[in-house]
Amino acid sequence: MRNVAKLSPADMDCAVAQALAHIGDRWTLLVLRNAFHGMKRFDRFQEHLGIAPNILADRLRKLTQAGILQRHNLPSDGRAVVYKLTDKGLDLYPVLVALSEWGDRWEGNGKGPRLNLVERASGEPIAPMRVRSHDGRPLRPQEVTVEAGPGAAAHVLDLLADRSRGQQGK
Amino acid sequence: MRNVAKLSPADMDCAVAQALAHIGDRWTLLVLRNAFHGMKRFDRFQEHLGIAPNILADRLRKLTQAGILQRHNLPSDGRAVVYKLTDKGLDLYPVLVALSEWGDRWEGNGKGPRLNLVERASGEPIAPMRVRSHDGRPLRPQEVTVEAGPGAAAHVLDLLADRSRGQQGK
Repeated sequence: MRNVAKLSPADMDCAVAQALAHIGDRWTLLVLRNAFHGMKRFDRFQEHLGIAPNILADRLRKLTQAGILQRHNLPSDGRAVVYKLTDKGLDLYPVLVALSEWGDRWEGNGKGPRLNLVERASGEPIAPMRVRSHDGRPLRPQEVTVEAGPGAAAHVLDLLADRSRGQQGK
Repeated sequence: MRNVAKLSPADMDCAVAQALAHIGDRWTLLVLRNAFHGMKRFDRFQEHLGIAPNILADRLRKLTQAGILQRHNLPSDGRAVVYKLTDKGLDLYPVLVALSEWGDRWEGNGKGPRLNLVERASGEPIAPMRVRSHDGRPLRPQEVTVEAGPGAAAHVLDLLADRSRGQQGK
């Protein structure tokens, strides 16, 4: 099991690696952050992010190909193109919120949170993103164990074997 | 507000950008994934990820400098160095779990989940990572609104202004 093939991240049959193949790039995640804030147009992304047009075009193309964004023509102006999050893209919301909360907690600017996320209907702050038990109790990493699922490749099983060696510092 | 300075992601006073400055790299996130699985030693990271030693050394150094990993000498072997997640590193658990769940849902290998996360004490699967209301109801992005916090920079306020223009396709 030790001689797993050398792989680029995108080739690894691992859920994190596969996710990173599409969104594991800083500009990509900032484009997605802005899309979650309602931004839709090329010129607005470019202006707000200060990103080179060719890099932005590349990231939007990749996100569209990955089915995370979808291009639409505006009914009001047939030449104008907007990019909207698909269901697959919207499902990245927990990743973005968790990243944002971590950034505010550990890489703050000393002035307090930059943004507060609030439930529209109730006006209450959202619950902090935590890994939780089936009945909602926050769980620390050491309270969670990992079992190989039906899709686990040898590469992933090899990783799980490390957990039992954890005490020896391996 | 439109002429915000051109910034690299690391310079933006935004929680997501600041988080990405430290972990917005595929290899970095895979190193962290393995650390959450209990991996601690340089040679084991290198072997499992098939990563070039100089790249691995660079990522471990940056994660250590950022206070996400900490180097320890093993009591049993003073020459051996292990890397352990700090509290700041452990706090990335929701990000990694959310990424992993998304990858399994949308970039699966057709054989089912690769890993199942289970609460150690109860044996029950963990709750899916969702953005939730203060009392635990899952919330969709459109059910959440964003308010500028005390640390919000002009750059972030500019982003929020887009939300109100969202209906016009801006």
